[in-house]
Order: sequence, then structure tokens, then C-alpha cells
Amino acid sequence: MIRMIAFDADDTLWHNESIFALTHERYTDLLTPYHPQEWIESRLFATETGNLKRYGYGVKGFMLSMIETAIELTEGRITGREIGSILEFGREMLVAPIQLLSHVEETLPALAQRYPLLMLTKGDLFDQETKVARSGLADHFRHIEIVSEKDKTTYEKVMMQYNLRPDEFVMVGNSMKSDILPVLELGAYAAHIPYHLTWAHEKATLPETLRSRYLQLEHVGLLPELLKRLDAEHQE
Amino acid sequence: MIRMIAFDADDTLWHNESIFALTHERYTDLLTPYHPQEWIESRLFATETGNLKRYGYGVKGFMLSMIETAIELTEGRITGREIGSILEFGREMLVAPIQLLSHVEETLPALAQRYPLLMLTKGDLFDQETKVARSGLADHFRHIEIVSEKDKTTYEKVMMQYNLRPDEFVMVGNSMKSDILPVLELGAYAAHIPYHLTWAHEKATLPETLRSRYLQLEHVGLLPELLKRLDAEHQE
Repeated sequence: MIRMIAFDADDTLWHNESIFALTHERYTDLLTPYHPQEWIESRLFATETGNLKRYGYGVKGFMLSMIETAIELTEGRITGREIGSILEFGREMLVAPIQLLSHVEETLPALAQRYPLLMLTKGDLFDQETKVARSGLADHFRHIEIVSEKDKTTYEKVMMQYNLRPDEFVMVGNSMKSDILPVLELGAYAAHIPYHLTWAHEKATLPETLRSRYLQLEHVGLLPELLKRLDAEHQE
Repeated sequence: MIRMIAFDADDTLWHNESIFALTHERYTDLLTPYHPQEWIESRLFATETGNLKRYGYGVKGFMLSMIETAIELTEGRITGREIGSILEFGREMLVAPIQLLSHVEETLPALAQRYPLLMLTKGDLFDQETKVARSGLADHFRHIEIVSEKDKTTYEKVMMQYNLRPDEFVMVGNSMKSDILPVLELGAYAAHIPYHLTWAHEKATLPETLRSRYLQLEHVGLLPELLKRLDAEHQE
């Protein structure tokens, strides 16, 4: 019997990577006078990844990585004014309207009537809190947790905190690396809803051995039906 | 009877504002070719405060505010190389060694034997987590909570979560605005340990009406004695 459903937020409940993609475009446009687009993208990704240990996830760290990469790529020739534009790209990301993914708005309240829902999102505390508030979804969630990383330890803590056996817990999310694999490794259920864009850092493949509690859905609207099936199987 | 002691961290358990002060100095040195020091300081403070709503507290937001102010103050004439130096100032803040305040190291384990301790700190999730880890103090705390703001609502939630009456809770901290006033307003105890530097944003004055559960200490080493006195008063 499923006793808690946890949801990732970025790219599971609302669009996020698409905002990053748009900013990437504006950023490469700014720097193409200096370098070819592919090289800019590849340097930015390397800086971002290298900076995760320093800044963690989130827009502010991404802004700092964009600035750092721009200075490096131009050997310091980038102007203050151009860096001002990069700051502006980031500031616009921070206030971009929250666009819910399709079926989220009607599915969450229905699920919330049958199960306690947990929002479990990683990233920048302040940024994620304002997004949750702006999303209008907070009331459907019994608990909201913002963590700095979503790995096996994180999920173990969550299940311990709420007193859940692995077969009583489902995690729903778009990232194979953060939402699916660590959850399956603990023997819990993971419902994967791929988003059309995936940040290279979040890519991972599912090993054959972990397929038994892996569920894949096209959109969140299919989740209630799938949970009913799971609960029915449990009762057999 | 006191049933939980909560501690602020920055400038209560370890030095923090002094690292910001040092960075302010390096920053004004960089920009004095463009403007007088006082003007730089006052513009930086205005940008920082204006950006709190956008970035929240923490070093990453401060880095972005330093860059923004530098671009504004130089009307875009600041060079990419100089902005590179600002990034470097911030990166050094992020890895600055954690220097515990005096008496913290011996007092915390003693207190932890008698009371459950909660670390309650505001700021950037990722940054605060790494500081807690590097401080070596985590083991003394039963709970660690990192929040985006410390106001009355935050303390109400904490007391509810741990089932505490106001007279069972003491908050220990250096900031009148974040650690002391909201706690006193809820009728709980607040032990104020002033730090020799206070960020202008955290300054506030104590109204006469809130003095009854206000305690002031020179350093945290005096806390155990004070708690004993409080508990003795309760028993009378």
C-alpha cells in the first residue's frame, strides 16, 4: 500500500530547463563575436559542473558560472556592460513566471485527497521557496523539503523521517539521476516522467537490475490510474 | 524548565561578518580608482539590500551584488579582468576556514549533555551546510535547520514542530533583528551575545516592553550558568 508520494518540482511540476535553455541561447548570442557557439556551450558546461561543489545547484550559481566563463573565454576582454547583460539574463530567470506542466493542476488536488504528498526538490533554498509560493501548488503538499542534493542518503532520511517502508513510497520525477536511480536502489517505487530537455548533468541510464519498481509515464495525469493498479497488486 | 536551546551560527558559533568586512575592504580597494570609498560602501549596501528579495542571504547573492555595483559605479567601464577579481574574492569567502568563537568548542558538548540543541541558521542552504560540516560542530546538535528568513513565523513553526511552550525555549544569537526580537515577541527566552561587527541590515533596538525574557551575555561560555539560574527560578 502506497503511503506517501513524493514529487520533484523543476521539470516535473513546472517548466524549468526550458528557461535555462533560453538563457543559454541569449548567452551564446552575446559571446559569438568572440567564439563559436559549440565551444561556448562546452566551456560553460565545464565551468558549471566544476562549480557545483562550490555553489550547489540553482540560478545564482549558474549566473556566477556564466560570468566566469565569459571572462575566461574572452581572456578578460569582455566589457562591464556585457557582464551587466549576463546579470540581467539571470535576474529574468529568477522572476520568470511559473508555468505548470500539463495535467499538474488537476491531478495534484485529486491525489492529495488520497495520499499525503511531499514536494522534494533540490536547489537553492530561497529560489525554490519563491517558486513554490508562486506556483500556487503549496496547499496540495503535506510537506515541502528543499535539499542540497538528492541521493540515496537523502531518500533514506526521508523514509526514516516519515516511517515508510520502501514499498510504501513512490518518487515522481524527470531526472533519472536524482529522482529515479537512488530511489530504486533503496527498493522503493519511482515513476519517471521524462521532460523534453535534460541537463547533461542529470543524465543517467537505468540498469536492468533495477527495473522491477521502475514506472514510466508520459505525463502526471496518468499517475492516479497507475497508483490504483499498484495498490490493487499489493492487495492480491 | 528549558527544553530546547537553539543557536544561530554565523557570528554566534563562528566568525562570519569579519570575512565579509575583509572582502568589503578588498572590494573598495579595487574600485577606489573610480570612486571614493564611502560612496562605494554606500552603493554596495543599497544594492545588497535591494537584492535580498531577489537573491536571499548568502555569499553568492553578495558576489552578484558586488558585480552589479561595480558595473553601475563605473558605468560599465570596469574590465572583465577586474570582475574576475571580484569572483575570486567571493570564492575565497566560500572556502575561508571556519573559525569558532571563543568558548564555543568546550561549551557546546557540555550543553548537549543536558539539553537538545538546535542549530537554526538562515542563509544559503548549500553554503550553510558546508559550513556546518567544516565547523566540526554538527554532532552536538540534535537538529539542524537552515531557513531563508528568521522571523516570528519561523520561530512559531519551530516551537510547534518540537512541541515547546515559549517558556521552554531559548534562542541564542548575535542578531537583535533575527535572533532576539521575534523570539521575545513570542514570549520565549532570547540570549543575546553581541558580535563586534553587525551588518547594518541586522541592526535593531530592543523595546522596553520586551526586556523580561531578554538575556545578554558576553560570550557563550556564560550560557550554562545562566540556564541553571533560569531553571532554578522556574522551580521556585
